[in-house]
Amino acid sequence: MTSSCPVPHPETERVLLGHGSGGQLMAELLTDVITPELGLTAPLEDAALIGLNQVFSTDSYVVTPRFFPGGDIGSLAVHGTVNDLAMRGARPLALSLAYIVEEGLPLSELRDITRSAAAAARAAGVPIVTGDTKVVGRGAADGLYVTTTGVGMRLRDARPSAAGAEPGDVVLVSGPVGLHGIAILSAREGLGFDADVSSDSRPLNDLVAAMIAAGGADVHALRDPTRGGLAGSLNEIAAASGVCVEVVESAVPVPVPVAAACDLLGLDPWHVANEGCLVAFVAPGSADAVVAAMRALPEGAGTAVVGEVVEGVAGRVLARTLVGSSRVVDVLVGEQLPRIC
Amino acid sequence: MTSSCPVPHPETERVLLGHGSGGQLMAELLTDVITPELGLTAPLEDAALIGLNQVFSTDSYVVTPRFFPGGDIGSLAVHGTVNDLAMRGARPLALSLAYIVEEGLPLSELRDITRSAAAAARAAGVPIVTGDTKVVGRGAADGLYVTTTGVGMRLRDARPSAAGAEPGDVVLVSGPVGLHGIAILSAREGLGFDADVSSDSRPLNDLVAAMIAAGGADVHALRDPTRGGLAGSLNEIAAASGVCVEVVESAVPVPVPVAAACDLLGLDPWHVANEGCLVAFVAPGSADAVVAAMRALPEGAGTAVVGEVVEGVAGRVLARTLVGSSRVVDVLVGEQLPRIC
Repeated sequence: MTSSCPVPHPETERVLLGHGSGGQLMAELLTDVITPELGLTAPLEDAALIGLNQVFSTDSYVVTPRFFPGGDIGSLAVHGTVNDLAMRGARPLALSLAYIVEEGLPLSELRDITRSAAAAARAAGVPIVTGDTKVVGRGAADGLYVTTTGVGMRLRDARPSAAGAEPGDVVLVSGPVGLHGIAILSAREGLGFDADVSSDSRPLNDLVAAMIAAGGADVHALRDPTRGGLAGSLNEIAAASGVCVEVVESAVPVPVPVAAACDLLGLDPWHVANEGCLVAFVAPGSADAVVAAMRALPEGAGTAVVGEVVEGVAGRVLARTLVGSSRVVDVLVGEQLPRIC
Repeated sequence: MTSSCPVPHPETERVLLGHGSGGQLMAELLTDVITPELGLTAPLEDAALIGLNQVFSTDSYVVTPRFFPGGDIGSLAVHGTVNDLAMRGARPLALSLAYIVEEGLPLSELRDITRSAAAAARAAGVPIVTGDTKVVGRGAADGLYVTTTGVGMRLRDARPSAAGAEPGDVVLVSGPVGLHGIAILSAREGLGFDADVSSDSRPLNDLVAAMIAAGGADVHALRDPTRGGLAGSLNEIAAASGVCVEVVESAVPVPVPVAAACDLLGLDPWHVANEGCLVAFVAPGSADAVVAAMRALPEGAGTAVVGEVVEGVAGRVLARTLVGSSRVVDVLVGEQLPRIC
């Protein structure tokens, strides 16, 4: 990551909540503890390649509450993994669904969540083909954790990678940011934004297919800004590609209720998690065609051109403000909101 | 399953520990709650096919304690999924590794477990290519849960299926049964069997490759008797294949310390979980060659011919005792030992 001084975390001997944030502590956990043991090299993509054209991705879901405006842990677990495959330009072929259930969970709830996962998978056009169920005693889990894993096939000409952004690329965001995080926060804490804010949780594989059909290999980088939010995804791409990204602050679509909630709570909407939009870096020659293809679909109707890859410090993300000044867009250090996905 | 009368479980509205047992309650949970919603049809295999020759399997691991004689949750999670792929006759191509970590877990422990998983994967010849880490608050998980998912490629001529057993098939067991369950129980409860009993946790993909090389499509059914034990696997194959299986009780290799521990604790060693042996149903013409190939490998050195598929009630498993009588081998109804894998 881009920080130049170490973050103070006196308790590094133990896992902290912030290690799951999608921010800098999490990057350190991965870099220091996990990837060296596995022999994996950063930057980690949302999904790994197997062979030439198969893509493989896994995610565990621990969201609380399990039901929230716009979705539940079942649909979220399907959308999240479908989208991780899509960010590598892949069509989903098959999903697995693994449950860790706390003793005492109502069976009706497990049935509802399974039904929701199945409906989400059908809507995304991917079968759930295998699964697993483990039960742990009361107090050993918080109701239900879900892990989905997906296998996908890369679309023809699709080569998006977090390391693929190039100078001159146009930066796109496919829709409003901050909805998922604020919806979860509101549902969890009873803040009363629920009426205005629903999670954007939805599958993005059709959107990506339309983008690849329009732009092919000119779609250089794709990322769905989940944990860590838009700022996290932009920084990951900037770092992995070794480029400087400039975003026009006012061009990023932040819904009014999200902006209001963030103001009230002291959050930065660019750090808030999303589950139904993506960030794309596209070669300038194909940007218009890709934007048009995105806007033709409901999930891309709000597509905005928000910035470009500029000359500058590699790995840095800048926001140009209305008054013409620039500020550095940092990643979250610790935890904005735990158990968001 | 084979039971003819419903099991009493007055609390069916909620998930019980026994729903995770690999026994009859678990079968009911799958049949009543999960598979109908997903549109999956029983019998469930250990792994699903994608397309013609790819195999896909997932498992969550919640074992406690996380370190036990013969392994830990990291190596177990790798072996378990590699073996599920192998039971469909597949060579593992890639694994994913997803952690749900409780805040406060020592980082050194997470590192040790990751290192162990990586070593197990290397030993099985499969790369861990992608992963995920979620952190939940203190009290919301019990230290660490691990979910592994694997993709494999079916070996040439490999067609093993739980539904593939045929009349006349010879039934093989690749090694001693009951070691994993007794090792976990002993480590957890401080029973002091640890000195004598280690988990058999190990990869079986090379063993299966040798079996397929020797027997090809004559290897009709494979199952690793994890949760639910040998009795569970035999019953699953008998039910899925619609055959009657007769096992010679004295032919099943039960190590002396396992038998002693089971006697003491009132357990049936055929219900105790294993993580490093398999049950095979092989056409009689290839049985000798398959047994020879198995015994040539360390993990198959103790291979025993334990029974055959006979004329009789479809779905039934019989044990022939030393005095020549027969008893019905039932599946576990509820829970023998929770959190065994």
